[in-house]
Formats: sequence, structure tokens, C-alpha cells
Amino acid sequence: MLKNTMSLGRKPLSEQVADILIEEVKSGKLNPGDRVPSETELGERLGVSRSTVREAVKQLVSKNIFEIHRGEGTFVCSNVGVSSDPLGFQFVSDRKKLALDLCEIRSIIEPWIVRKAAENATEEDIRQMEKLCCDVEAMIAKGKNHSDPDIKLHKLWAECTGNSVAPNLIPVLLQSIPLFIDVTGGALTEPTITTHRRITDAIRRHDPAAAEEAMRDHIAFNRQAIERLPVQDF
Amino acid sequence: MLKNTMSLGRKPLSEQVADILIEEVKSGKLNPGDRVPSETELGERLGVSRSTVREAVKQLVSKNIFEIHRGEGTFVCSNVGVSSDPLGFQFVSDRKKLALDLCEIRSIIEPWIVRKAAENATEEDIRQMEKLCCDVEAMIAKGKNHSDPDIKLHKLWAECTGNSVAPNLIPVLLQSIPLFIDVTGGALTEPTITTHRRITDAIRRHDPAAAEEAMRDHIAFNRQAIERLPVQDF
Repeated sequence: MLKNTMSLGRKPLSEQVADILIEEVKSGKLNPGDRVPSETELGERLGVSRSTVREAVKQLVSKNIFEIHRGEGTFVCSNVGVSSDPLGFQFVSDRKKLALDLCEIRSIIEPWIVRKAAENATEEDIRQMEKLCCDVEAMIAKGKNHSDPDIKLHKLWAECTGNSVAPNLIPVLLQSIPLFIDVTGGALTEPTITTHRRITDAIRRHDPAAAEEAMRDHIAFNRQAIERLPVQDF
Repeated sequence: MLKNTMSLGRKPLSEQVADILIEEVKSGKLNPGDRVPSETELGERLGVSRSTVREAVKQLVSKNIFEIHRGEGTFVCSNVGVSSDPLGFQFVSDRKKLALDLCEIRSIIEPWIVRKAAENATEEDIRQMEKLCCDVEAMIAKGKNHSDPDIKLHKLWAECTGNSVAPNLIPVLLQSIPLFIDVTGGALTEPTITTHRRITDAIRRHDPAAAEEAMRDHIAFNRQAIERLPVQDF
């Protein structure tokens, strides 16, 4: 069937296969983190060659829908469809201004996020937040880069808003964290620990105003540390 | 030189060529909207084959850095590095909730944007805004889809903040506009015209509070119209 439509001068076969696989992700037949069936299996099911399947998979990898884990196979991305640099920040040449501008946008959105999180968070959400606070603190104690649990914590707060856009947006706006931890060399670890805990405590008490205030302080510490750094450190 | 590093088991040649072209965009040697030199010209300059250049260009197209205009050649994208669906919204199945969630995020960011725009906008910015208001109104009068000048107007307000992230973010959050115009079939045109004008007038008077209030009304009209629509219309 795919071949027939192709002969009518429609989309290339590999794109048709890619469209079918995208539909399977949308419909939940394939879910984030799932292993994608092998080229042979897909080729047989769809009646196309392995090389056509390979080309389709390549297209989906370039669109951040699938990812290849070497030696393990092909998987549906956990953040499906979201690229590692979705807003093209690699093309902003003034890195210090970019870091400050990201802080400014965060200072608009994240106080609202933690206010909503303080209203909505479940017991299980709060347990997860406390665990992530511990993870950040453990990484800091070991002198390791804590950006991974740090971003997860901010993303969890965003998930608690119930808004489906916020958890996709926050990791994009927090891109500066790894950059930032590198350049400050840990100078900001104490205020990070303290304000993360203050935000989480306020959410546990379901106190939106306190959560918002703690988030404002958290971002202010970030901004001040960035402002102190010379441009060449970015 | 490229070939030598390749023989040492480094990145594939086409990726090295792609990296060089990315550097030329970053450094401003190639700018958004520029025509990219031909495969032959690039191949000769970099000492690689045309097919290697072609593979590199393909990679850059898939990363939204270059775009091919059929019959005209290859160009640097105007929104370089920003994909058409950077946050993976195509994978959100509840379209009505997505449209409402986008409204909610806009209601956090855009009042701040127009407040800053009212502080910063130049005479030239304001002339541009008034022209875009006219463009939206002309499209509406002709019964055409006005999402293109509409998004440009919101992007221009975001540019007036001086924040480099906001103008990249706003078109992403306004993705719902084309969708929305299709489903409402023009029901929202009158409030759109009126509130765009109110925002622009407030910015011209450099009145941040009035600009913010008009934007809150603008987004509220959008949200109410979305809420009234049945789920199956999305």
C-alpha cells in the first residue's frame, strides 16, 4: 500500500514510514523510553526494505523523536520531539547576556510555577522534591556537577502546575545551569541548597506566598553570581 | 586538512563540514537570510567532495539552520536553529488543553513584555507596530488568515524588551494562533483588532500599566473563545 501511493508521486517512502511511526508515538502505541522494533521487523510489517526503515529512523533521530543507544538499540526519546537546543541559543554570541536574559525570563515564570505547585502538589510530589533536594546536595558534597538533579527538581515543580507546556519549557530556560556551574566553580552551592529547601518546605506547607518569595531569592542569587563574573568566563 | 583529521578516527567528514558552516553562522560570516555558497564552491574551498557538502547541508537543514528554497538555492534560516515545533507540541494529544495551557503561559509572560515595550520602544518600533496592526486588519477585512502579521506583532513587542530570549520564545507560545483562527472562523476578529490597537496605543504613550492591562484583556478574549469551543473542533 505504501508503495502504491508512492508511485502516484506522493511523499518519499521513508517519509511515509516516518509518518506512520510518528502516529504510533502520538497514539501511545510507542511511548517515551520504549524500544523501537528492529529494522527487519518494521520492514516486514510495513512491506518496505530495511534501508527504507533505516532512512525513516534517521529522520526521526534528527527530529529528536527517536534516539540510538549504541549497542542497545533504538528508543523513543524521553522528552519526545524536544531538541537539545530548541530555541537556537548556540547562535547567541554574548553568553553572559544570554545567561542574564534566561534569569530574567525565569524570574517571570518560576515564581508563578512554585505558587501553583504549593497549591497542587501531592504527598508523592513532595517526597520526590525532597529526594531531588538530597540528590543535589549529595552531588555538591562530592564536588560533582549537580545540574542533572537540579533541572529535574525545577521540572518537577513545573509538572505540579498541571500546565502541559511548563515542564517542556523549564529545561530549555535552565540550559544556563550547567554552563553556570562550570564558571562559578561551586561559589553558589550554599544559596542553591538553602533556597531549594525553602521552596520545597513552602510547597510542603502549601504556602504559595512563601514558595514564591523563596523562588525570587533563588533566582536573585543566580543573577547576582552571573553579574559578578567577567564576560570572558562565559 | 579535514581529511587528515578524519583519518585519525575523528568525526565523519560531513559533520566536520557542518561544524565549519555552523561556526560561520555564529561568527556572522553567514547571516540569517543569506544565500549559502554552492556545493561546488564550498567543496573547493574546504577540499572535500560535493557529496560530502551535500550531506553536511542536509544535516544543517534537519537542524533548522539552513533551508532549501526550491529553484532558488540554500539559505540560512531567518530564525536560525529554532525548529517549527521546538517543544514537541505535536505529541500533546489534548489540543484544547494545549491551547488553554499556552494561553496560561502567555498570560504570565506577555503582560511583562508589553510593560517593558512601553518603557523601551523607539519611534521606529512604534511605526512598525502600527503597520503590523494595519496588516492584521487588512487580512481580516479580506477574510484571510492573519496569523503571520499577528505573530510578527507579538514578536516585535518581545524584541522591544531587550531580552534576547523573549523574541525566540513568543512565536513558540503563539503556535496556537493559526490553529485557533481556523477553528473560530473569525469569531474573535473584533476583540483582536481592538486590543492590538489598545496595546500599541499604550506603548506609544509609554504607559506600561495600560499596555499590561490591554494585554491581559487580549489574552482573556483568546482564552474565553477557546473555552467556548467543543473539544472536537481542535
